[in-house]
Amino acid sequence: MRSADKQDALVVFSPSGKRGRFAIGTPLLQAARSLGVDIDSVCGGRAMCGHCQVHVTEGALPKHGIVSTSENLSAPGEHEQQFAKQFDLDEGRRLSCRATVEGDVAIDVPATSQVLQQVIRKPGEAHDIAIHPVVQPHFIEVSKPELNQPDGDLQRIYAALEQQWQLRGLSCGLPVQQRLQQALREGDWQITVAVRNDNRIIAAWPGLRDRLYGVAIDVGSTTIAAHLCDLRSGEVLESSGVMNPQIRFGEDLMSRVSYVMENPESEQELTTVVRRSINELVLGLADAAGLDRNEIVELTFVGNPIMHHLLLGISPVELGRAPFTLANNSSIEVTASELGIGINPGAYAYVLPCIAGHVGADAAGVLLAEEPWERDDISLVVDVGTNAEILLGNKERMLAASSPTGPAFEGAQISAGQRAAAGAIERVRIDRETLEPRYKVIGCDLWSDDPGFDDQRPEVGITGICGSGIIEAIAEMYLAGIVRPNGSIDGDYVLHAGDQNIAITQADVRAIQLAKAALYAGVCLLMAERGVERIDRIRLAGAFGAQIDAKYAMVLGMIPDCDLSAVSSAGNAAGTGARIALLNKDARTLIEDRVRRIEKIETAAAPGFQDMYVEAMGIPHLVHEFTQLATSVDLPKAKA
Amino acid sequence: MRSADKQDALVVFSPSGKRGRFAIGTPLLQAARSLGVDIDSVCGGRAMCGHCQVHVTEGALPKHGIVSTSENLSAPGEHEQQFAKQFDLDEGRRLSCRATVEGDVAIDVPATSQVLQQVIRKPGEAHDIAIHPVVQPHFIEVSKPELNQPDGDLQRIYAALEQQWQLRGLSCGLPVQQRLQQALREGDWQITVAVRNDNRIIAAWPGLRDRLYGVAIDVGSTTIAAHLCDLRSGEVLESSGVMNPQIRFGEDLMSRVSYVMENPESEQELTTVVRRSINELVLGLADAAGLDRNEIVELTFVGNPIMHHLLLGISPVELGRAPFTLANNSSIEVTASELGIGINPGAYAYVLPCIAGHVGADAAGVLLAEEPWERDDISLVVDVGTNAEILLGNKERMLAASSPTGPAFEGAQISAGQRAAAGAIERVRIDRETLEPRYKVIGCDLWSDDPGFDDQRPEVGITGICGSGIIEAIAEMYLAGIVRPNGSIDGDYVLHAGDQNIAITQADVRAIQLAKAALYAGVCLLMAERGVERIDRIRLAGAFGAQIDAKYAMVLGMIPDCDLSAVSSAGNAAGTGARIALLNKDARTLIEDRVRRIEKIETAAAPGFQDMYVEAMGIPHLVHEFTQLATSVDLPKAKA
Repeated sequence: MRSADKQDALVVFSPSGKRGRFAIGTPLLQAARSLGVDIDSVCGGRAMCGHCQVHVTEGALPKHGIVSTSENLSAPGEHEQQFAKQFDLDEGRRLSCRATVEGDVAIDVPATSQVLQQVIRKPGEAHDIAIHPVVQPHFIEVSKPELNQPDGDLQRIYAALEQQWQLRGLSCGLPVQQRLQQALREGDWQITVAVRNDNRIIAAWPGLRDRLYGVAIDVGSTTIAAHLCDLRSGEVLESSGVMNPQIRFGEDLMSRVSYVMENPESEQELTTVVRRSINELVLGLADAAGLDRNEIVELTFVGNPIMHHLLLGISPVELGRAPFTLANNSSIEVTASELGIGINPGAYAYVLPCIAGHVGADAAGVLLAEEPWERDDISLVVDVGTNAEILLGNKERMLAASSPTGPAFEGAQISAGQRAAAGAIERVRIDRETLEPRYKVIGCDLWSDDPGFDDQRPEVGITGICGSGIIEAIAEMYLAGIVRPNGSIDGDYVLHAGDQNIAITQADVRAIQLAKAALYAGVCLLMAERGVERIDRIRLAGAFGAQIDAKYAMVLGMIPDCDLSAVSSAGNAAGTGARIALLNKDARTLIEDRVRRIEKIETAAAPGFQDMYVEAMGIPHLVHEFTQLATSVDLPKAKA
Repeated sequence: MRSADKQDALVVFSPSGKRGRFAIGTPLLQAARSLGVDIDSVCGGRAMCGHCQVHVTEGALPKHGIVSTSENLSAPGEHEQQFAKQFDLDEGRRLSCRATVEGDVAIDVPATSQVLQQVIRKPGEAHDIAIHPVVQPHFIEVSKPELNQPDGDLQRIYAALEQQWQLRGLSCGLPVQQRLQQALREGDWQITVAVRNDNRIIAAWPGLRDRLYGVAIDVGSTTIAAHLCDLRSGEVLESSGVMNPQIRFGEDLMSRVSYVMENPESEQELTTVVRRSINELVLGLADAAGLDRNEIVELTFVGNPIMHHLLLGISPVELGRAPFTLANNSSIEVTASELGIGINPGAYAYVLPCIAGHVGADAAGVLLAEEPWERDDISLVVDVGTNAEILLGNKERMLAASSPTGPAFEGAQISAGQRAAAGAIERVRIDRETLEPRYKVIGCDLWSDDPGFDDQRPEVGITGICGSGIIEAIAEMYLAGIVRPNGSIDGDYVLHAGDQNIAITQADVRAIQLAKAALYAGVCLLMAERGVERIDRIRLAGAFGAQIDAKYAMVLGMIPDCDLSAVSSAGNAAGTGARIALLNKDARTLIEDRVRRIEKIETAAAPGFQDMYVEAMGIPHLVHEFTQLATSVDLPKAKA
């Protein structure tokens, strides 16, 4: 209701609390922009995208001295009514690009109408993700060409982006240029362009297109995992994983590097197979979500240094020999098509930086997911694979190292070891008196001594023991007095008798001793370098970190003593880091800066590391600190 | 000879005349750099590349008050002697990076030791070419990696380029990154990197590499021509041409566009075949010159708008219908690999800008070769093809237009017309009394009435008449009174009787009348727009321009009256323009700027063009100005 006697009115925006007086007739979106209130719009105020929806807070606001009412906005006009009909606009919602100020009013901007949204953290994740993707859609109306005006279509698009979105100095890749003319004419001179980093047009569609998608990819040596995300909401639409097909060239990383060393042309082969798998994975996600693959405009990648190099088509040979030199330790941007990924032909891939020759872009992803530099207390973040990547510190100083644990924790080099798959023993308990074992296998909820176990156990049978099973077996064997503190045992300990016994051998215990000593010594080295004697919290990243029981890891002396309640799984933190870099371009600047600043410790070159390694071999190596554990896992005080 | 009593000495450089006093012991190269004297060096002063050779001017220089002698330089040391032995250094030449100042001396810097060299113009070319290529080789020594120093190889290369060449803010494409580690180790931490535009590493080789190469390519609708150039000397090492394979989709441009319109998927086909031909052409040049194809690091392209779009994989459909909108009227840079050209994988291609929908990057090349904006007098530059591209003006103001001459000048739409190839009649004379013709054919030096012509004529026989032959035939027919000023003739005029007569028909004369009227009217339109009544000089570009006799073109009224001595062939000016853009990066900035500023006149939209067109149909249309021609070609004053 326009008050004839008023020239302007007060508008208060919540939740920001920003307020100002505006001339009667000012569109709300314009008022918001002039105050710096965050309201999204893809269509640029044409009542087409509906991103700028707001609603009026009704009633008296004594604090502001006004009575707010929806009648103090203009009545919905033709465009807005049309939008409301077509897209089922919620009751009370208004398009802020169309509703004009007609009197004092308080406006609530819902989270979904803000450019800078947040994705709530998932279990295991350390913090919410702010949404600020590197690629943004912009709807534009482009002037028509004329006989006497020889400007190219691209030049008139640049002019429209400058005039309608204040974007200047843009460039445009060839794949988009090949499609622009048709898009313009199909859209009757209205198109949506995807602009990357405010400086490059990477895609274009006829008409309005307000949703763009990206995929965050974690290239592990065993598994490749990918998450298809809505770049506006941050929502994960689909996730999927496949085995890394490079496994056929070598189960673990070093055997793949050896393969390349012995077959110098084969890094191309390893590159080809992994790229092909990623392409299939990504296109599969698009299909599953019912998207056109051209709607996927950005990829992010994490992976250990060898996966990183092979993905990019760089030989991993230098990573297999001292001094373990990376080809490039900055982040890398390439086009998706250079990697053979058949999404939008203008799309880019952002590969997080590697930290050092053994501390990869996966560790950078973990850092980004965990942000230990935000905290006062000392965090230890461990990602266990063939190498354990160790991150330690707080807001004052962060250190990174890699320790050569070898593949024992993944079940390799263990007589009955196997990958975590159906049939693998994953939990073990040993009776302290009878020394009889009981266990659980993957694929069955019952313990081996539960009634009905034999009926419910996986069809494949009991096939072996996976990483977390080995940890528990040896820790329980120690707690039951079967393993002595120096690691010696009297003959094989059979967990499961059958056609082929599943047993823990002396060699198995030695392999785990070496692996856990490497990890522990690496942590000790960083603690010494950092000058701390105690860790305040421990985050275990990766699949292995999610599976192992922290108690047993501590019994075994894999990780240093720490309040058990302060030990937790960080989930697939590397993948989370890739997702953060996908959804937030500022996170890229952040991790590039942090990776430059983090202090890299080369365990192989550190004096004293060998001593720590030898010292860490015993089980447990710091018995006096196990008081807390004693209550929870029945430490063998009598027998030790 | 070091003078014990002197602290410094005078050094005079020629031809620059720059002089300064330098401390005894200063290397000449350093002295030159501090004075801004242009001396080249790829190896950065390591006595390896030999680019910095100079020699001493011996004797008294009264003007400078010194006596210059080679004894006032340090004696050649070990490195320099080694270089002299290995590379046969000319007597008296010294490496300025090694020779130090020991007393007063005058130094001559030969042209071959300067960074900014010039290529002397070839016949037909308008000016010399200054050499300043966009890609420069830089030799660097890179620090070795260390266990405790996690910098990637690329980062240490960046550091070396900053320290040794003052290059900052560099980027590096993936193809180079894939090869860097091996190059570094093969070169024992000495490599040469090719840096483009001082901001991007595009290639790398182990050790010292001081020659890089590029190819300038003119994509014509009939022929694709390419010139392989040494980017340092500017020398053309090899040139070659192939037929444009798109011809099978349509002889002339518009029929190719029609083909694409009727077969919407076929622009990819046309793109594929032309790229494949270019690739073969370029690799053939490398083989012929004995080069590794990886040594070719830059390409430049010119072509008419339709060739330009098809090369880039952009549909030409919009260029075939009003308002003839270009996809992009700026210059375009893409990687050579995006165009499927298998040279150095880091190489780029620079495509000159199109001027308007009918005035292409070929016309931009012509402009760059001709630089009519450098002159006070009014130039007319014409490139005749299916469309005539017309450039007119001087330093004050330049205009460009295209006129739809159609393919008649190329022999199409002419009853006996054919391309300029062996067997085609290219010269015609008609006896003014007997009206008997005589002619010359391509592939034979004799006239048809010379003794022995029948023995020496090409094996294919007399197969037709090419563009220049048609011009001469009709002009001679007019001069002999066979063609009336309005273009009418009394029946076919037989040039060659045989199984199939080669004759000029009434329809042929009409086709040429229409074509020449279009060209002439286009020129008139620009003259009117430019406000000039007379042209001072005419340059005829392209193959057709090189073949036709200007006298006959003037008799026919193709081009306006002009002092015959001021009419000349510009050779393949479009190709020359591509070569200039290849050898000199400043020329790119120049042409981009000039193309923006040139005034584009759309003949189809110009009021008055139709009138001019109709008026220009007669032969000759301006009889009163033909006094000069009368003396040289025997104008038919009596019969006219």
